Amino acid sequence: MSMITLAHGEGGEQSHRLIQDIFVPYFSHGEEAKYDGAILPAADLLRIGRGELVVTTDSFVVKPLFFPGGNIGKLAIAGTVNDLAVSGAVPLYVTAAFILEEGFLISQLEEIVSTMASEARKAGVRIVAGDTKVVQKGKTDGVFITTTGVGIRRESALQLSASKIEEGDAVIVTGTVGDHGTAILMERERFEIDHNAVSDCACLNHMLLDALDCFSGIRLMRDATRGGLATVLVEWAEDFGLTIELVEEKVPVSDAVKGIAQLLGYDPLYLPNEGKAVLLVENAEAEKVLAKLQSHEAGKGAAIIGTVKQKGGRQLLFKTPLGIHRRLHRLNGVQLPRIC
Amino acid sequence: MSMITLAHGEGGEQSHRLIQDIFVPYFSHGEEAKYDGAILPAADLLRIGRGELVVTTDSFVVKPLFFPGGNIGKLAIAGTVNDLAVSGAVPLYVTAAFILEEGFLISQLEEIVSTMASEARKAGVRIVAGDTKVVQKGKTDGVFITTTGVGIRRESALQLSASKIEEGDAVIVTGTVGDHGTAILMERERFEIDHNAVSDCACLNHMLLDALDCFSGIRLMRDATRGGLATVLVEWAEDFGLTIELVEEKVPVSDAVKGIAQLLGYDPLYLPNEGKAVLLVENAEAEKVLAKLQSHEAGKGAAIIGTVKQKGGRQLLFKTPLGIHRRLHRLNGVQLPRIC
Repeated sequence: MSMITLAHGEGGEQSHRLIQDIFVPYFSHGEEAKYDGAILPAADLLRIGRGELVVTTDSFVVKPLFFPGGNIGKLAIAGTVNDLAVSGAVPLYVTAAFILEEGFLISQLEEIVSTMASEARKAGVRIVAGDTKVVQKGKTDGVFITTTGVGIRRESALQLSASKIEEGDAVIVTGTVGDHGTAILMERERFEIDHNAVSDCACLNHMLLDALDCFSGIRLMRDATRGGLATVLVEWAEDFGLTIELVEEKVPVSDAVKGIAQLLGYDPLYLPNEGKAVLLVENAEAEKVLAKLQSHEAGKGAAIIGTVKQKGGRQLLFKTPLGIHRRLHRLNGVQLPRIC
Repeated sequence: MSMITLAHGEGGEQSHRLIQDIFVPYFSHGEEAKYDGAILPAADLLRIGRGELVVTTDSFVVKPLFFPGGNIGKLAIAGTVNDLAVSGAVPLYVTAAFILEEGFLISQLEEIVSTMASEARKAGVRIVAGDTKVVQKGKTDGVFITTTGVGIRRESALQLSASKIEEGDAVIVTGTVGDHGTAILMERERFEIDHNAVSDCACLNHMLLDALDCFSGIRLMRDATRGGLATVLVEWAEDFGLTIELVEEKVPVSDAVKGIAQLLGYDPLYLPNEGKAVLLVENAEAEKVLAKLQSHEAGKGAAIIGTVKQKGGRQLLFKTPLGIHRRLHRLNGVQLPRIC
């Protein structure tokens, strides 16, 4: 048994064996793994924070499946964990549904599943339920994974509220931007360019929840995935009626990303990240929050990159080194499909 | 804008508009719809049952997307709601992640989304979070939907326990078997056969939870989807070490399904259902549970179809009208791919 066949998706003998051979060894938690409706103890729900549940879901269709810095499985865990963390929730449980193409190598599936298990362990979440479907060869592309996360909001998440935003609030990013998008692009297109672009794909929950627990002036947090840093800030400006100024020379971009982006005409501000968050923080606390983020490995490149210039205006302004303000908009059209 | 483009999956302007135009109108609940990390009130968690959370996930890849009796959206809601219900959980929240093929008709997407909204309303669940990814034309097949359900176990779910199974316990099915598989097969293959096969796709939560609350002798419940009725019973026999006898003439099969299955050589016992559950019930309560199920529209065809003959043996025996016992096994190989 080295390739996925349609029989693996039929719910019969082959499905049963696939689950026993590939999923149970990596995803089980001591007790008998049940993949239809995991039952989670009430105690877990009440032990943390306010008992409010946070639920988030994402499908992952990245191509290629394996790339410098990770694979689709790592992405699926990190993406879901980070969505919970930026809501101020402690990620507890993740479900994982696989849509597999007939002919997919079981060894590749196992590598993906084992990566998911190890990322989940690091993040402190449990993979509690799963599903496997198989689609005919040519009717899908390798494997798609949909993960759903369930977490509990921490008490400290109450500070996350757009209503508290003030002029002068600082915009912080937790590190260099554009790494994931660049790594995927280079791996996929195989341009004849020497590069060392590596995806930043990582779980940020420990860092972000630490910051949240230590401070009271964090207004907003968001992971800057599809659409990149600029899209998060445009959405905040539009949704909450703000004029946000982003200062070009403050935005951390690695040399690798800078070089490739210039060469190929991409804007790192719009390139997706899978291990970076953006925070809007009360000015008085900004330096302290920055230091806290930098004390974590995942945040060592964190920087203050902008401010809320005005309540009103609904715009993101980009200030160049020459002091010129350029207005940034939502991404329009297609920049880089299937990056997550 | 009449077709899905790659830009709809980029997280920029087009994604934003798709969400505003298609998802928000159907899925929002009064408050501002948030599609990244829905926050659910603690009160909901504690108001029902024991506070234990049940989580379940399934991907849906059915082909064709539209069929007599439903579409992929109805299937996605019913499948997830039923997985929660058979665990004895009140379904509260559902998340929905869409993987769309470039070129997919937005009118079809809207029909699917609107069906999901109406099924969710009937079942009493809220669609609380979503995601949309777009894949290049030819790299996937129309639309795949992954739904994850969150529910709370009812107090009465405590009766569900394999440890209470006794010899003489009755096997009940909530209606005719094989309807969904047959409807999909006929719609997909377009054989030149007149037929009126209709999928049984439906949410069973109200019926099953009513039965659970009224009785104390229900040992097991399961929805008989992929692999059909026989697979559920083989799994019970093997997992709990039972000899279960299934009586051929007691198993309800519609004339439409019977005719088509005979003609094409399918066994209705292994054909998938999307609106039928199997229950294992204490003998003394079997008739009363049956009457309760029959009092619901979804259970009007319910029947007692077998018994636990012996604790031990790990086998499913099929008793023909001539009194011959045939042993049934798990489905081996491929019978009917992409039926859900």
